[in-house]
Amino acid sequence: MTAHDPRFDTLIERRGSHCVKWDMMEKIYGVPQQDGLAMWVADMDFRPPQCVLDAVSRQVDHGIVGYFGDDDAYHDAIRWWMRERHGWEVEADAIFTTHGLVNGTAMCVDTFTAPGDGIVLFTPVYHAFAKVIRANDRRVVECELSYDGTRYAPDFEAWDEVVERSNATMMILCSPHNPNGRVWTRAELEGFAALARRHDLILVSDEIHHDLVFPGTTHVPMANIAGISDRLVMMTSTTKTFNIAGSHSGNVIIPNEGLRARFAKRMMALGLSPNSFGLFMATAAYSPEGAAWVDDLIAYLDGNRRLFDAGLDAIPGVKSVPLEATYLSWVDFSGTGMQREEFTRRVEKDARIAVNHGTTFGKGGDAFLRFNIATPRANVEAAVERMQKAFADLQ
Amino acid sequence: MTAHDPRFDTLIERRGSHCVKWDMMEKIYGVPQQDGLAMWVADMDFRPPQCVLDAVSRQVDHGIVGYFGDDDAYHDAIRWWMRERHGWEVEADAIFTTHGLVNGTAMCVDTFTAPGDGIVLFTPVYHAFAKVIRANDRRVVECELSYDGTRYAPDFEAWDEVVERSNATMMILCSPHNPNGRVWTRAELEGFAALARRHDLILVSDEIHHDLVFPGTTHVPMANIAGISDRLVMMTSTTKTFNIAGSHSGNVIIPNEGLRARFAKRMMALGLSPNSFGLFMATAAYSPEGAAWVDDLIAYLDGNRRLFDAGLDAIPGVKSVPLEATYLSWVDFSGTGMQREEFTRRVEKDARIAVNHGTTFGKGGDAFLRFNIATPRANVEAAVERMQKAFADLQ
Repeated sequence: MTAHDPRFDTLIERRGSHCVKWDMMEKIYGVPQQDGLAMWVADMDFRPPQCVLDAVSRQVDHGIVGYFGDDDAYHDAIRWWMRERHGWEVEADAIFTTHGLVNGTAMCVDTFTAPGDGIVLFTPVYHAFAKVIRANDRRVVECELSYDGTRYAPDFEAWDEVVERSNATMMILCSPHNPNGRVWTRAELEGFAALARRHDLILVSDEIHHDLVFPGTTHVPMANIAGISDRLVMMTSTTKTFNIAGSHSGNVIIPNEGLRARFAKRMMALGLSPNSFGLFMATAAYSPEGAAWVDDLIAYLDGNRRLFDAGLDAIPGVKSVPLEATYLSWVDFSGTGMQREEFTRRVEKDARIAVNHGTTFGKGGDAFLRFNIATPRANVEAAVERMQKAFADLQ
Repeated sequence: MTAHDPRFDTLIERRGSHCVKWDMMEKIYGVPQQDGLAMWVADMDFRPPQCVLDAVSRQVDHGIVGYFGDDDAYHDAIRWWMRERHGWEVEADAIFTTHGLVNGTAMCVDTFTAPGDGIVLFTPVYHAFAKVIRANDRRVVECELSYDGTRYAPDFEAWDEVVERSNATMMILCSPHNPNGRVWTRAELEGFAALARRHDLILVSDEIHHDLVFPGTTHVPMANIAGISDRLVMMTSTTKTFNIAGSHSGNVIIPNEGLRARFAKRMMALGLSPNSFGLFMATAAYSPEGAAWVDDLIAYLDGNRRLFDAGLDAIPGVKSVPLEATYLSWVDFSGTGMQREEFTRRVEKDARIAVNHGTTFGKGGDAFLRFNIATPRANVEAAVERMQKAFADLQ
C-alpha cells in the first residue's frame, strides 16, 4: 500500500460547494446527500497543486479580469509538457483551446463530418461521445471491444465489416480508455490508425487521461504513430490531470494544416475564445511543480486502486477490471448472476454509493458500474466496506 | 466634474498581465508599449467590486475546481438583477450561459439562420457582429443609421426597402448602441420590433451595455416591448458591467419556448457548458453590493465623458458624439477635412493612443475613431492633452 499523503488524504467537504458530484447525487441517483459516497462524475476530491491555485490568486491580487492577450507562455507550457512528459513535439500553431473536451469533441464532429454520417466508437466508452454525436444528428457506429473477463482488446477483423457498412467518416478513440482503463500498446494504436486509413476516417484521439497512467505501463500519443498525422486530431487537457474541470479548458491539437484551417474557421464562426482562468491555470500546471504533483497523485491513486480492487474482488462474482490508467474503476457484476436492477439497487440503496451506470457507455456495459476512486483513501475504505456488506449474502 | 474615487482613480499597471488592451497595442497599432495609452479593447482599467473578487478567492480557499452543479443561486441572481435594475421579469428556464456574447451572437446565427441568409445590422456597429456573420457564410445587410452631426437615429422608411431586397432572416440590434452611445427610446425600440415583424426576422437584442447608462436616460429592455417576444433573443452579461471579460460568460435569454428548444439543442450539440468562475462571479456581482458599485462607476464614467468630450470638442473640426450609455466615445474627425490616414496617424503616432478604427464598424464609420474612456481620469486627462497637441495646428 502506498504511503499516506496529507494532500490527498484530507477529506474536503464538497457538499454545498456547487459541485455536481456531491451535490446532485440524491437528485439524480437517490443516494442520500447526508451519508452517500459520490463515486460517479469524473473529477477528484483533491485540491490541485498549489502552483495552480496560486495562478488564480495572482489574478485576484491584480484584480483586473479583462480580455486575455499574448498566449506565448501558455503555448510554451503546453509544448514543454507534451515534450517532457510524453515525448511528443507540438507546434504552437497546432493548438486550439476549446471549452473542455466535450466541446472539443463536438467541434470535431461539427467541423469534420456532416449530418447523417456515421462516427465510430469503441464501446463500452465514455458516454458523452454518443450524446454529442446524436445531438449533432450523426449516427453512432459501435465497434464493441472484446473482453475476456479481465482485459479489453481491439478486434480489428470483426470491426472492418462493421465500419465498411456504416458510411462512417470519423472515429473517436479514447486513449487511455475510459472506462476500461486500458493503455493501448503501440501495436494496438497502429491497428486503430490502420483502421482509420482503410476506411478513410478522421481519427479523433481523446487522450485526456494520458497523464494518469500507473507504473508498469507507458502511454504512446497517437501523434507519435507513423502515417496518421494527416487525418489526426489530438485532444488533451489540464482539467483531468490537475482536477480543474470547472475551468472548462481543453487542448485540441491538429498536426495537419488543412484540418487545422477548417477547425479554425469553425472556432471563429462560433465565437469561441478561452476564459483567462483556464489559460493561467494551465500555464502554471504544465510545469516542473505540476509534474511532481502528478507523480505523487499517481502513487496515491495506485494505492487506492489496489485497495479497491482487492476489496471488490473479494466479493464472489464481482470483478473490478484492473486499471492501467485513469481513476475510473470498471466493475463487472456479471458473475453475481444478478439482474442489473438488483446489483444497482444494492449499490445505490444499500451501500449508498453514487456510480455511473454501465448502460450509458454503450454495448457491453450492461453488467457494469463505474466507480470513481479519486477520493481520500478513507472514502475508498468505506466504499469497500459498504460494498462487502451490501453483497454479504454472496460470501 | 464628478468627485474623484480611489477605486477608479488608481492606476493599475496592466502591461505584462496578459492583457490584450495594453500588451498588444504596439503589435497591432504600432503605438509604443512604453508610453502609449490603450483606449481600444472594450474592457475597463478598474478592478471589479470586491464581492466579485471575493467569489474567486472563496474558490481558491476551498481549492477544488471540479464540475459545477446546482445553478439555482446563479439563476436567482440574474433574475433579481433584471427585475431590480431593469424592471424585466426573466424565467429561469429562459436563461442560457454562453462563453461571452460573441459566442452568444454566433450561436444565434448558427441556430436560427442558414448559410446564405442575410442578417441585418444597424451600422456603424460593433465590429464582431459582421465578423461572426461572415465566418458563418451568412451575408451582412447594412442598414445605415442616420446622423445629423451629433446624434444617430433609425431611418425605418429607408430600411424597409433595404431589408425587403435582402432575404434577411435575422436582425442584430445593439441596445444601448456601440459605438454611437445611443439609448434607444421606447418609440424607437417599437420601430425596430415592427421592422422585425414586417420582414419576419428573428430579433437579437444585444444589451450588454444596459447597465452603463448615464443619468437622464432610461434603458428599456426589448423584452418589455409588446408583440416581439415570439421572435426575440435577449443578450446581457456581467462581463461588461463588472469588467470581468476574462471570465467569458454571457446570458442569452430566450422568452419563446420554441426558439429556446432550438437553442438548447445547439448548445448540447456543441458541448457548451459554462466555466465555474464565470458562474460564481456572476452570482456575486448581481447583488446589492454589485449594484452600489455600478452606481458609483457610472458617476465616475460620467465625469470622464464630460472631461473627454469638452477636451476633444475644443479641437476645431473634431466632435465627440455625446454618449447616453457605454464608455466608448465615438469621435468624428470629418470636420477636420483630413483624410482618414492623416487623422489616424496623428492619433497613433503623435498622440500615441491606441483606438478602434471606424472603418471596422461598417458603413458610416470612415471618418471616426472609437476611444475607450473607462480608465483612471489621469489617463483621460493625458489623452485630451495629447490629442490637443497632436491637432494643435487646427487651433
